[in-house]
Amino acid sequence: MLIRKGVWQMRWAQRLVLACVIVWPCLPGSMARAEGSDDRQQLLASVHVHSTASTGELTIDALAERAEQLGLDVFGIGEHHRPDLIASSPAVVLSAIAQRTNKIRLTSAVTVLSSDDPVRVFQQFSTLDLLSNGRAEIMAGRGSFIESFPLFGYDLHDYDELFEEKLQLLLKIRSEENITWRGKHRAALNNQGVYPRPFQEKLPVWIAVGGSPNSVIRAARLNLPLAIAIIGGMPQGFVPFVDLYRKSLNEFGHDPLPIGINSPTYIADTSQQAQDEHWPHYEALFSKIGKERGWPPTTRHQYEAQCSEKGALLVGSPQQVIDKILYEYELLGHDRFLAQISMSSLPHEKAMHSIELFGSKVAPVIRREIESKNKN
Amino acid sequence: MLIRKGVWQMRWAQRLVLACVIVWPCLPGSMARAEGSDDRQQLLASVHVHSTASTGELTIDALAERAEQLGLDVFGIGEHHRPDLIASSPAVVLSAIAQRTNKIRLTSAVTVLSSDDPVRVFQQFSTLDLLSNGRAEIMAGRGSFIESFPLFGYDLHDYDELFEEKLQLLLKIRSEENITWRGKHRAALNNQGVYPRPFQEKLPVWIAVGGSPNSVIRAARLNLPLAIAIIGGMPQGFVPFVDLYRKSLNEFGHDPLPIGINSPTYIADTSQQAQDEHWPHYEALFSKIGKERGWPPTTRHQYEAQCSEKGALLVGSPQQVIDKILYEYELLGHDRFLAQISMSSLPHEKAMHSIELFGSKVAPVIRREIESKNKN
Repeated sequence: MLIRKGVWQMRWAQRLVLACVIVWPCLPGSMARAEGSDDRQQLLASVHVHSTASTGELTIDALAERAEQLGLDVFGIGEHHRPDLIASSPAVVLSAIAQRTNKIRLTSAVTVLSSDDPVRVFQQFSTLDLLSNGRAEIMAGRGSFIESFPLFGYDLHDYDELFEEKLQLLLKIRSEENITWRGKHRAALNNQGVYPRPFQEKLPVWIAVGGSPNSVIRAARLNLPLAIAIIGGMPQGFVPFVDLYRKSLNEFGHDPLPIGINSPTYIADTSQQAQDEHWPHYEALFSKIGKERGWPPTTRHQYEAQCSEKGALLVGSPQQVIDKILYEYELLGHDRFLAQISMSSLPHEKAMHSIELFGSKVAPVIRREIESKNKN
Repeated sequence: MLIRKGVWQMRWAQRLVLACVIVWPCLPGSMARAEGSDDRQQLLASVHVHSTASTGELTIDALAERAEQLGLDVFGIGEHHRPDLIASSPAVVLSAIAQRTNKIRLTSAVTVLSSDDPVRVFQQFSTLDLLSNGRAEIMAGRGSFIESFPLFGYDLHDYDELFEEKLQLLLKIRSEENITWRGKHRAALNNQGVYPRPFQEKLPVWIAVGGSPNSVIRAARLNLPLAIAIIGGMPQGFVPFVDLYRKSLNEFGHDPLPIGINSPTYIADTSQQAQDEHWPHYEALFSKIGKERGWPPTTRHQYEAQCSEKGALLVGSPQQVIDKILYEYELLGHDRFLAQISMSSLPHEKAMHSIELFGSKVAPVIRREIESKNKN
């Protein structure tokens, strides 16, 4: 079945859309290489992001294929511009995945729109949409990582202005075929066509936000679904954001729109195993990013607090993850849950097992529970 | 076998590399739509550029898959920004094709580098290269169609300067991981990394030229293989270009490099059938483009002259196309022949039959003949 009127109509199906998002895709070995080992042969030997994986190595498209088989609804790929995180062109990666799958929706998570050209972004996702028979989505964000700004000649002082302007242009291209437009951060357009047009009548565009109320209000003003990244702290703290979004939608005269929650997720057979297996990778990544951003070092103690009942991380046994998703659903009443699986240094087979458990043990229970809640 | 040192080493294999290039990919129905019929349902119903073509409709990836099965060496996709020609993001389309194929090399034909960002182009083709285990190539050109210039804010007055600058940057990115660079048409880079790095040690970059001697000298100066588009006139007229390229390579102190010839190709079972089937599509396309560019209308008489023994078009029976490729080989001694198959209004099954004949009837004879020529 093709969802022709945009994925947000799923809302009225009274189910929680469940997604896998590979936020930090990384080739095995490239982390080591980035650190200076320059072990190119090893990098080459361990690249298996292709269709006929002849070794046991699991690949991003294999993960996506399995996610679809398990009945998950959406598969996402993040955009980064670093030696340790490989996917700088999500549409090119998603296009390969489209050929391995038939039903699962394909999204960027996120497209760093502020430092990109909305014309090119639309063209790439429109092409993906045609190649996937209408499964493409754009999740647009201002960007959490900032490498792309100097790389494409943008000034971080214009961080928000860039996003606002480029988003407006993207939406204009989405609704009109011939564009007349003038702005500050891109050449003007004078009745120019942008092609190809997508398969779907309207390419879905979600706005991804961190914790800025202005971003939430903007999504409501522009009548766009909202994806909230809850990557730390307590989900409870996001209740005001969700309320603000719903209230703003109403004030702008729009109908309710879906809300997605994106959170770091790692599921293993037992609680202890989940934390023990996940922590070293979490620590490595967050220490590295933290060093770049001047954060204090992450401690195991803090980590465990975030893994606990009311924390932001969905790290645990299937039952713990079920409990947390349902807890968040009670709090936020969201429509989508996107499990962010960081591939950075995590072995692919661990990511695969996590997806297996998410699809086979967590998803069926969540769907049943939410259906029964909505009946009552 | 993986060609690790770049495809031009094929030269020493003493064979003519045979390629299919879909220069004007177009969705069935989109031509009609562009003409104003706005028959969206028909467009949607006839979109089958996907992995599990459930109808009889042939798709671009099916063509590529068949080209590989037939033993052709390269498959290419053109870049256009028009309602009637669909592929504005060749890397996204090629990435889907990479999942349906294992050996065939994948190239843009061409990437309109003058109006693009070399950083994004490199990132996309590098990603494609990883996804295809080292089969990606960039064929860079100044662009024959010019829609992309105003679309991306470039001035046609800078036509050549843009290409020169962007090509230099692309080559720098190809050979260095961290780039420091300053130019006129793109933001400067200060020791910034461009990722991912490709699977191949060096992403092949070909220079596509029309008929400008300066472009030929530039390719030689930059030590890059040359793709000559012979789309009209007489192949004989291109002998001076080929000589100029070889002489210039020598003067710049470079070793010989391969030369590719790209020409419009249509093969049918008989000579008459080929012309009768091909002419209406050729006429429709060239009249349309001609009107935009102020050319006089194309006549069947001129067309037939170009299809004759010494003309530029490879339209005919398998034997006629064999004769013309061998005639051109005698004249130009090229290393690659790329059959440009325009999909515009041509039904996909006709394109497929043409590829079938190219792979099954033409290619084996060409290979045998050239091998025996090179032995003597």
